[in-house]
Amino acid sequence: MSDERVNDGVHERFDEPVIERVIEHLRAHFREDLEAVRAFLRTPSVSYTGEGIQETAEQVAGFVRALGGQARVVPTAGHPIVYGRLDQGAPHTVLVYGMYDVMPADEPNWSSDPWGAEIRELPRLGPSIIARGAVNTKGPLAAFFRAVAGYQAAAGRLPVNLIFAIEGEEEMGSRHFLPFVEAHAGELKAAQAVLFPFFSQDEEGVPWLTLGTKGIVYFELECRGGDWGGPTERGIHGSYNAWVANPAWRLVQALATMVDADEQVRVEGFFDGAEPLPEEERRLLEEQVASGRLDERPFMAFEHVRRFKGGLRGLPLWERLFAQPQLNIDGIVGGYVGEGTKTLLPHRALAKMDVRLVPRMDPERVAQAIRAHLDRHGYADIEMRVLNTYPWSKVSLHEPAVQAMVETYQEMGAPPQVWPLNPGSAPYYVFERVLGMPYVTGGMGHGGRQHSTDEYCTVQGVLDFEISMVRWLHGLARRLGQPRGERAAG
Amino acid sequence: MSDERVNDGVHERFDEPVIERVIEHLRAHFREDLEAVRAFLRTPSVSYTGEGIQETAEQVAGFVRALGGQARVVPTAGHPIVYGRLDQGAPHTVLVYGMYDVMPADEPNWSSDPWGAEIRELPRLGPSIIARGAVNTKGPLAAFFRAVAGYQAAAGRLPVNLIFAIEGEEEMGSRHFLPFVEAHAGELKAAQAVLFPFFSQDEEGVPWLTLGTKGIVYFELECRGGDWGGPTERGIHGSYNAWVANPAWRLVQALATMVDADEQVRVEGFFDGAEPLPEEERRLLEEQVASGRLDERPFMAFEHVRRFKGGLRGLPLWERLFAQPQLNIDGIVGGYVGEGTKTLLPHRALAKMDVRLVPRMDPERVAQAIRAHLDRHGYADIEMRVLNTYPWSKVSLHEPAVQAMVETYQEMGAPPQVWPLNPGSAPYYVFERVLGMPYVTGGMGHGGRQHSTDEYCTVQGVLDFEISMVRWLHGLARRLGQPRGERAAG
Repeated sequence: MSDERVNDGVHERFDEPVIERVIEHLRAHFREDLEAVRAFLRTPSVSYTGEGIQETAEQVAGFVRALGGQARVVPTAGHPIVYGRLDQGAPHTVLVYGMYDVMPADEPNWSSDPWGAEIRELPRLGPSIIARGAVNTKGPLAAFFRAVAGYQAAAGRLPVNLIFAIEGEEEMGSRHFLPFVEAHAGELKAAQAVLFPFFSQDEEGVPWLTLGTKGIVYFELECRGGDWGGPTERGIHGSYNAWVANPAWRLVQALATMVDADEQVRVEGFFDGAEPLPEEERRLLEEQVASGRLDERPFMAFEHVRRFKGGLRGLPLWERLFAQPQLNIDGIVGGYVGEGTKTLLPHRALAKMDVRLVPRMDPERVAQAIRAHLDRHGYADIEMRVLNTYPWSKVSLHEPAVQAMVETYQEMGAPPQVWPLNPGSAPYYVFERVLGMPYVTGGMGHGGRQHSTDEYCTVQGVLDFEISMVRWLHGLARRLGQPRGERAAG
Repeated sequence: MSDERVNDGVHERFDEPVIERVIEHLRAHFREDLEAVRAFLRTPSVSYTGEGIQETAEQVAGFVRALGGQARVVPTAGHPIVYGRLDQGAPHTVLVYGMYDVMPADEPNWSSDPWGAEIRELPRLGPSIIARGAVNTKGPLAAFFRAVAGYQAAAGRLPVNLIFAIEGEEEMGSRHFLPFVEAHAGELKAAQAVLFPFFSQDEEGVPWLTLGTKGIVYFELECRGGDWGGPTERGIHGSYNAWVANPAWRLVQALATMVDADEQVRVEGFFDGAEPLPEEERRLLEEQVASGRLDERPFMAFEHVRRFKGGLRGLPLWERLFAQPQLNIDGIVGGYVGEGTKTLLPHRALAKMDVRLVPRMDPERVAQAIRAHLDRHGYADIEMRVLNTYPWSKVSLHEPAVQAMVETYQEMGAPPQVWPLNPGSAPYYVFERVLGMPYVTGGMGHGGRQHSTDEYCTVQGVLDFEISMVRWLHGLARRLGQPRGERAAG
């Protein structure tokens, strides 16, 4: 893709000396900022267990107050949401969405303490922080606060006001964030755009900009012994499988009807509503693949993948990522799974699964299609529990918040990859559908191994991220110019 | 079955007052014996972890020495074997096989400490000991020693000599027992029969007598990412299942080719060699089912099973148990299996499986058939690890050791069920094929929930077991009469 197509054009020069002064300040004080980020990573904040959640929420509220803002730790039926406001007397306002929770760090084989935030030299990447949350997303969250503080220290006030909504249940499906947004919609609509600060550069340094997110249906299938057979209350001696059927076999057989040997989904109605890529986005993909800006090879090397589904490479592979839903087994378990030769006929087996939805699939219809498929194949006894759903969401490349991010990356010498969708899930539909507000995820910086061992972010990336954030705030203010009447009234 | 068919007949009266005196002694001293059994159950002896193994082996050696015998704790490449001898100057010798190891007790939801050996009132069963190993098999092992001690106290000497070979790896597949037997075959062949002491009554009080054991092939199937696809070194973010295939799906698909939806095995060559029941045993089954002595209903109630495979009941069900191999999933695991909605694309998935072999299936051929099946279906990448195999074994109903057990049960008012095979596995092929010696598992007494939560044995059963053991020793000595030349020379 030509950069001209991605960047709608810089319309005016805007206070260049201020931003240079701010960047100089960030460079000069980076050691302190780095230590602050590391300190934040050392408090566990595991939403699944609740460990450190309250303490971390208070820390985040403290970050807002340290900027001169107001913040409350707002209780929900689950973990609290940090709700803050930093009024800088500016004509425009940005809603900063974030998450202070992280995944558990219970994987074995971390090479250093997941809560130690040690700095280690990583091959090709240089000094990096090793920590659960380093990239997803306590690292960028803490660095964002330091960038704003640096801006204030060097330039007095930010060019925009900020509202903060930092939740503690993102990794559990953001289950209380929608009600929070609905309850505070009147105040939140004072913002013109939403920012989710994130280290967006890949391992080659290319930032990644998404124009939406996939939706998700996360569910469990559980097969238990019952009228069909199997032990119903507890596992029994394995030798009685001669007589008694096995719920693990039944789950395996039921699952096997859902995809073919190549993992092509065979659930009737599963693909209903799925649309091919819009033509503009397909052309963007084509150009990026042709120019080499989109390249699957770093992913293959980094994730140790030797072959993609169907043997795809290049454009068809990228089109698949943005236009095809998936039906994934996140986990499967039943019976005795320890060492050795213990025999058991288990009374239950469980699969944890997710569907990633592309526009315009409907989460409810997908869940119903899967249920109907199981029923039709004789597995009405298998319980399907839908644990979480997000709709997909989309944002236009031409929104000022998106354009300001493109410009920031270009100014920093790192023209972005543009992805039609984030293949992961985030509750952005809340912004798009409830608040009617454009959103952008971004920032320079690099990290990896989310949800896995040895999650990391590079040290250099933390500084680059800070610089990119002040540039973006600055650039967005310039693009928005005077408040638009219809938004100011919102 | 008529009892006449099972019992070849009592040939002579044999010192009746002695046995009555012994039984009186056992009744009078039962409280002490019960406490000794409970004490033995309070030392964990988990072969998988090694916890308490050495200590428990020493305890067992002490039991032999307390009888006036000699005992050594013989090291193996794994856990030691307690090898003992109690010479009573008798013309015949019994080899007592046993195991001092137990399964782990790591299941959740035990209602009391698995190492506490608490006595609790169980519905319909009365006071019972709750402990890992209560029935399988530290309970009967300890009680056997107390029964022998009681015999000696009341009658001086036993009517037979004893050799003890008590291993500590039965739950791990008895992997060092065969070499031990081979190394000591010359001494062990002094025995005329093998006894495995066990609480053999079901929940209705009917003892169970087996004429052999099934064999086993225990194996793991592991699917890992590789040239075919999938992540190869660690799990990756679940959203990339859009691109990258999933080893859990691949394992599921491979497994699904091995059985049909009714769990009928579809592996070519799997059934090779399997023979129908011998006609005498089929008639025995038929009579026992007709008379109600073999009845699947207590099993259904106790194990909470509502339906058997294929909807079978009665004779066809019992024939299936003794003439059909199984292909069981003992456990399956891969990916994230905790609470909540963590997404993951796992890099490996594992199934633990067992085949129970009926005569005359060959363990090697079965393993080869499964490997060939996977290869033929395109799953050559799936690793098959055979962890353990036992051949099946058989013993005749007409052996004196078996006949003495039948007679014991009849004398105690509990005519036995006769099972052509033990559906579980035990290393009896070692006795049958290596030593050429008949064996019998038995004793009154009842317990249940082997390999599961709340394993138990009844208190009354411990006393009944002790009485049955002294009766059996007595009866066997009488049946054997003067040493047979060919065995005494062995």
